[in-house]
Amino acid sequence: MGGVPGAGKTTVINKLKEVLKEDVFVVNFGTVMIDIAKERFGITDRDAMRKLSRVKQNELQLAAIDKIVELEKGKRYVIIDTHLAIKTPSGYMPGFPKELLEKVKPEIIVLITARPEEIWERRHLDTSRKRDLESIDDILEHEKINIAYLMAYSAMSGAYALIVRNNNGKLEDAVNRIKSLFYDGEK
Amino acid sequence: MGGVPGAGKTTVINKLKEVLKEDVFVVNFGTVMIDIAKERFGITDRDAMRKLSRVKQNELQLAAIDKIVELEKGKRYVIIDTHLAIKTPSGYMPGFPKELLEKVKPEIIVLITARPEEIWERRHLDTSRKRDLESIDDILEHEKINIAYLMAYSAMSGAYALIVRNNNGKLEDAVNRIKSLFYDGEK
Amino acid sequence: MGGVPGAGKTTVINKLKEVLKEDVFVVNFGTVMIDIAKERFGITDRDAMRKLSRVKQNELQLAAIDKIVELEKGKRYVIIDTHLAIKTPSGYMPGFPKELLEKVKPEIIVLITARPEEIWERRHLDTSRKRDLESIDDILEHEKINIAYLMAYSAMSGAYALIVRNNNGKLEDAVNRIKSLFYDGEK
Repeated sequence: MGGVPGAGKTTVINKLKEVLKEDVFVVNFGTVMIDIAKERFGITDRDAMRKLSRVKQNELQLAAIDKIVELEKGKRYVIIDTHLAIKTPSGYMPGFPKELLEKVKPEIIVLITARPEEIWERRHLDTSRKRDLESIDDILEHEKINIAYLMAYSAMSGAYALIVRNNNGKLEDAVNRIKSLFYDGEK
Repeated sequence: MGGVPGAGKTTVINKLKEVLKEDVFVVNFGTVMIDIAKERFGITDRDAMRKLSRVKQNELQLAAIDKIVELEKGKRYVIIDTHLAIKTPSGYMPGFPKELLEKVKPEIIVLITARPEEIWERRHLDTSRKRDLESIDDILEHEKINIAYLMAYSAMSGAYALIVRNNNGKLEDAVNRIKSLFYDGEK
Repeated sequence: MGGVPGAGKTTVINKLKEVLKEDVFVVNFGTVMIDIAKERFGITDRDAMRKLSRVKQNELQLAAIDKIVELEKGKRYVIIDTHLAIKTPSGYMPGFPKELLEKVKPEIIVLITARPEEIWERRHLDTSRKRDLESIDDILEHEKINIAYLMAYSAMSGAYALIVRNNNGKLEDAVNRIKSLFYDGEK
């Protein structure tokens, strides 16, 4: 599951945890990466991590994939909270590299999105995180890029690609949309 | 060859059959899938098929690919009438999964498209098929998604990607555009 | 590095050569292809090459990849001047087929772009090259397609995807943006 900062991914996931309870196991890709970054490079900040050299970022990403494969063993439903594309100084870094698609084999890749103005506003209101303040045009570009990556990942892996709109006041709908994906074919 | 419902894919293909006659063999992916669905799951309706569980849909898709590989043996030119992406309750399902690209090796992937308002209108006028009535925004989203899938399939397989506009009154042009792809390098 | 004709790719690359000097080796994919086309098919014109049969174009592309792998041996930094997608009568041909991604392993794929009106204007002012005069709509379509291909290549190969805007009067910025990619993690 991915989405640009401010799309409301974390909020949606927290609601899903409340609803699905022990049936679902949530793992945050960035948190796994930063835990490894701490050990290996002494880094503590997410934004500092995004500014590491490409070689180091790739190393962290691969290590995180292996960690996740280990963590999800024996779990029934797993949600990976991540980004479809990470914006770095060298350009977009694919969030679901081939290795992840092959090792983790996601069944559905979900993109959480919202109206660009809403995303912009949410970022400005959120003072708890150190977020790059981008223009609405930048947000629109990132969205387009996310959709292109989403379809590429889906084409490469055969996973379903689901776009869920989390517009203001529609959180319930977004959560229900994703909830309906679980227990498919078991009812 | 793919296109959203209402883009005029079937009309274009029927015209091509008239023009190219025995040089071309047309196979409808959905029809092959439904024939298998009848045998295996007792389903008769296309829309019912799209609502099957993901496991069953994937099974049908793989079985259809094998059937098509069998059918196209010895044929000179083959057109596969299909969708680039199938809209299901779990999100978009890739219409050209890796297995299809590797086994069928399409030379050109064609997306038939038209103005969204025209697609919308055609769907409303067509009462012969049970089609989901989507808004123009949904049609626009599906179009964007089709283009992203098209380029991903092309990048993965090396196939050419052709976008053909079948706007109202331009059927002849669309047919000629595709006709010109045949006999390439043989004249 | 790719970009539609008129985006200013050649200008940006020439500036980079001035700035990076012997640290960078630039190879033009089209030039390598045409050299091979001359030998094999007696063709001298770039546009004539784009109108060759699909079989011949694919042959040239594969031969060019092998030549480039040979040329870049021992070089520190290599820029491949190419197109993300080549517009041919059979549709878009992927400029970075799987073979190129696997053999050349690009670290970053850069798309040079500019406002569509500027691209249109630059093409009309450039009388030195035989360029197809497309409408602004065609340029916009080609841009969208380039972005979709860019993300697909990035997803397939793990390469970073960078979009650089080379708007009128902003050449310096575009060059500096790309220059900053070099010597990453070595400072």
